[in-house]
Amino acid sequence: MTNKACAAFVFVMIHSALSYEANLGYNYPETKFYKQQLDHLNPTVDDTFEQRYLISDQYWNKKSGPILFYAGNEGDITVFCNNTGFMWDIAPKFGALVVFAEHRYYGESNPYPDVKLLPENVAKFGQFTIEQALADFADLIVHLKSTIQGAEHSPVIAFGGSYGGMLAAWLRRKYPHIVLGALAASAPVRYFPDYVECSAYNQVVTKDFFDTEFGQQCTENIRQSWSSIEDVASKPDGLRKLTDAFHLCEPLKSADALENWLSEAWSSLAMVNYPYPTSFLNPLPRWPVKATCEKLAKPKLSQDHLFEMIREGAGVFYNYSGQAKCFDVGAYSPGLDASFWNFQTCTEMVMPFCSNPDTDMFKPSKFSYDEYVKNCQKQFGTTPRRDWAVLQFGGDDWSDESNIIFSNGELDPWQVGGIFKSSSPTILTLFIENAAHHLDLRHKNLLDPISVRAARIQEIEAMAMWIMEHNLQQKDHKA
Amino acid sequence: MTNKACAAFVFVMIHSALSYEANLGYNYPETKFYKQQLDHLNPTVDDTFEQRYLISDQYWNKKSGPILFYAGNEGDITVFCNNTGFMWDIAPKFGALVVFAEHRYYGESNPYPDVKLLPENVAKFGQFTIEQALADFADLIVHLKSTIQGAEHSPVIAFGGSYGGMLAAWLRRKYPHIVLGALAASAPVRYFPDYVECSAYNQVVTKDFFDTEFGQQCTENIRQSWSSIEDVASKPDGLRKLTDAFHLCEPLKSADALENWLSEAWSSLAMVNYPYPTSFLNPLPRWPVKATCEKLAKPKLSQDHLFEMIREGAGVFYNYSGQAKCFDVGAYSPGLDASFWNFQTCTEMVMPFCSNPDTDMFKPSKFSYDEYVKNCQKQFGTTPRRDWAVLQFGGDDWSDESNIIFSNGELDPWQVGGIFKSSSPTILTLFIENAAHHLDLRHKNLLDPISVRAARIQEIEAMAMWIMEHNLQQKDHKA
Repeated sequence: MTNKACAAFVFVMIHSALSYEANLGYNYPETKFYKQQLDHLNPTVDDTFEQRYLISDQYWNKKSGPILFYAGNEGDITVFCNNTGFMWDIAPKFGALVVFAEHRYYGESNPYPDVKLLPENVAKFGQFTIEQALADFADLIVHLKSTIQGAEHSPVIAFGGSYGGMLAAWLRRKYPHIVLGALAASAPVRYFPDYVECSAYNQVVTKDFFDTEFGQQCTENIRQSWSSIEDVASKPDGLRKLTDAFHLCEPLKSADALENWLSEAWSSLAMVNYPYPTSFLNPLPRWPVKATCEKLAKPKLSQDHLFEMIREGAGVFYNYSGQAKCFDVGAYSPGLDASFWNFQTCTEMVMPFCSNPDTDMFKPSKFSYDEYVKNCQKQFGTTPRRDWAVLQFGGDDWSDESNIIFSNGELDPWQVGGIFKSSSPTILTLFIENAAHHLDLRHKNLLDPISVRAARIQEIEAMAMWIMEHNLQQKDHKA
Repeated sequence: MTNKACAAFVFVMIHSALSYEANLGYNYPETKFYKQQLDHLNPTVDDTFEQRYLISDQYWNKKSGPILFYAGNEGDITVFCNNTGFMWDIAPKFGALVVFAEHRYYGESNPYPDVKLLPENVAKFGQFTIEQALADFADLIVHLKSTIQGAEHSPVIAFGGSYGGMLAAWLRRKYPHIVLGALAASAPVRYFPDYVECSAYNQVVTKDFFDTEFGQQCTENIRQSWSSIEDVASKPDGLRKLTDAFHLCEPLKSADALENWLSEAWSSLAMVNYPYPTSFLNPLPRWPVKATCEKLAKPKLSQDHLFEMIREGAGVFYNYSGQAKCFDVGAYSPGLDASFWNFQTCTEMVMPFCSNPDTDMFKPSKFSYDEYVKNCQKQFGTTPRRDWAVLQFGGDDWSDESNIIFSNGELDPWQVGGIFKSSSPTILTLFIENAAHHLDLRHKNLLDPISVRAARIQEIEAMAMWIMEHNLQQKDHKA
C-alpha cells in the first residue's frame, strides 16, 4: 500500500469513526430515498437509483428558515450526520431544515450493491463521478424545495468536511443558482498534481508529532524504525521476529505490510488529533498524537526496545482500549468504501503523495505518476485523468466565486491542499490554530481550543450575512 | 413539422446562411484539430475524437492580448467564423488571438460521421450533450494556453450567438476559472418550460410584420391564409389546386406540409430581418420583412389573389433571386444539422412553441408536452428531461454571476427567452432596438442602426473593463 493509498484510506476512515458524542440533543432525522437518474449527463441512459438522505425539520422555521445541506462524502451518510454536530448546534439559531445527502455509490446509495469494483465490472461505475454526485445534490435540493411546503424560497447552504467540503465548495461553484453558499471545512480542493508538493502532507504529520512534549525523540524513533525493520526483515527468520516483536496475529509477509500499517497509524493520528476523546474503530484519547509520542519518548536502548516503543505508539491508534491481544496489519486494508475512494483517485482526482527524509519522518518514497497509473489500471481498469479535477473544478482559483468559507486546521495534514486566500470579498478563508481535520464541523465541546470557537463564530456570521442579503434581494425582487 | 421544429430549424439555418459580406479584411484563420475525450464525464470510456477549430494570430499581441473564443453552436464552424464579423472587427483593437471552436457532433467534429441519428444508434449519441461540449471548450482553451507561447496568462472572452450565446454564458458560469467573461448574443438561456409562454415567439414575429408600412393588411392576409388553405385542401382535387396556386414542384401531400413551409418562411424572415442585404440559401433583400409585407399589402380580391400574394411573400424568403421556377415545400426539411439540433431539444433542452390566434398570425396550435415527448421517442428513442436545462444552467437566475453581456434584439423572436435584468453589477443586459437575431455579432455595416452601434460600443467597453481588472489582479498577484 503506497502512501497515497494510506492517506486516501484515512480520508475515508476518519469519517466512519468519529462518533464519540453520545448525547446529541436532537431527534434523529428521518431517513428518506429519492429516485435519481443514474446518468444525469448521458441522455441515452434512462436507469435510476435510490439516493438516501436524512432530513429533520425539528428546528425549522417554515417562514424564513434556510436549508442546511450536507454534501455527503465517501461513506455511509449516517456517519457524517453523527459527526457534523456543528450543523445541529446552529440549526435552532437559524431555524433551519437540516438535510444530509448520501453520495452515490456509498452507503445505501449504491446503484449496484452486489457488483464488485473490479476491472471486469468497471462499466457499471462509469457514473461514479463527482459531476454526477453534484448533479444528484442539485436535483435533490430542487426536489425538496418544490415539494416541501414553505421551502420554495429557502436559501440553501452546503456543508461538507474533507472530500465533502470539496463537494460543498464545488456545488456552490457549479450550481450558484441552487446553493447560496458553502462551508468547505478542511477541503483539499487543490490537492492535485502541480498544485501541491507530494511530501507536504507527511511534513505536517511530522510537525504534529515533533511539536509535542517529547516530539524530537518521538520523531527520531519513528524515523529510525524504518531501517531497523528493513534490517531485520532482510535477515533469515526476520519476518518471524518482526511478527513477534509487533505482536501480530498472523505471520508477516513483507516488511512493506508492516511499514504501511505503521505509516497509516501516524497519518491517521495527525488527522484525528482532537482535544477531547473521540471514537474511531476503537476509542482514542484526547490529543492522541501527544499520547502516542509519550510512548516513544525515550532513546532506544536496543532494537527490541525501539520496536516495543513503536508497537506501543501504534497501539494508541490501533488498540487504545487495550482489548486487542494481537494486531492485524491488514486491518487498514481497503474495505468497501476505501476501495471506492481509491477508484475516485484513479479516475478524476489524482492525488500525489511521497515522503522526503529531509522534511518528514516517514520511510522515503518518491511519487511516480507512471506507477500511479499502472496501479489504477491494475486495480480498476481505469486510466486516471491527471489534470481533470483542476480543469473542471478550478484548483486554487476562486477569485470569481462568492459565499464560500474555506476553513483549515493547523494540525491537519490535508490543509496543504486547502485555500488560504482569495481576492473575492465574500470568500472567507480561516486558518484554525491547534485544530485537526475539520474540527470546526464537530459539536461544540468544553475542551475546544479558543481558535475553533472563534472560527465557528465567523462561520455563523458569514452565513447569516449571506442569508440576510439573499432575503433582501428576494424582497427587492418582489417589490 | 410543428412550430417547434420550425423554429429549431431556423435556429440552425440562419447560421448556415448569413455569409453576404465578401471582403472580410482578414486572412482566413488556420484550421486545426484537437484530440478530445469522447466522454469527459465517464471515466470508464477512453475513446477520443478530433475537434476542429479555427485560429488566427494575425492581430495578436503576444505580450498582453486576450483570446477571443467563439463557442461554436449547431453547425459547421466555418459558417460562424464567416458570420461573426464583430470578433474580427475588434481583434485589432484588443490585439487578440481569435479562435472559433466547433461544437462536437456538428460539422467536421462528429465522432461518428457515418452513423445516422436514429433510435437504433442512439447509444452513439450519449456524449452529444451541452456538458460535454462545454468541457471540450474548457479543455481546448487550457490546451491552447499551455501550448501557445505567450498565451499562458491571456484572459479569455467567450463569444456566441443564439445557442452559441447560451454556451458562451454557460461556459462563463461553469468555468469562470477558465473564461473571464462572455458575450452572449441573442441567447435564449431561459427558453424552457415554465419560463416562457409558448406563443411568445410567434407574437414577436407577428409584431415584426405588423410594424411595417403595410403591416396591418399583411398580417391580416397571413392570418386568413390558414383557413383558406384548409378550406381548399378539404375539397376534392384541393391539394392539386394548392400545388398549382403555390407553384410547387411536386404534388402537395397535405395542407400541413404547405402551412409549415409558410410558417417557416415568416419565422425565418423575422430572425434575419437585417438592415442590409444578406445571403441565406438564397440572397435576401435589406429589411426582408418589409419587402415581404409589400407583397402582401393589398386586401384580397379573391382566394386566388390571396394565394398569389402569400406565394409572392414566401418567395421573398425562398426565391428572392428569382431563379427558382417552382417551390419545394420539403426544402426546409431537417438537413443533417437541423436533425442534430432537434436531438438536443429532445434530450436536454425542451423548448415549447405554440400559436395563439389572439396574439399572433400563425395557424393556432397548442403545446402538448406529451406529444413533444412522443415525437422525441419516435424520432430518436430519447425521453427529454423537461427541467434539466434550468436545473443545470440556472434558467433566468444570473444574480451571482459576473462578466456576462446578454444582448437581445427587439425584432428577434428569440429575445423572449433572453435575460433583460440582473442584480449582478457586472452582468450587462442590452436590448437593441431595431435589431434582429444577434445583429451585434455581425461585421459593422454602414446601414447598421444607431442602436447596434451603441450596443457594440458598450460591449467593447465592458470587455475592456474585464480585461483591465484581470490584468490588475494578475499584477497584484505577482507583487
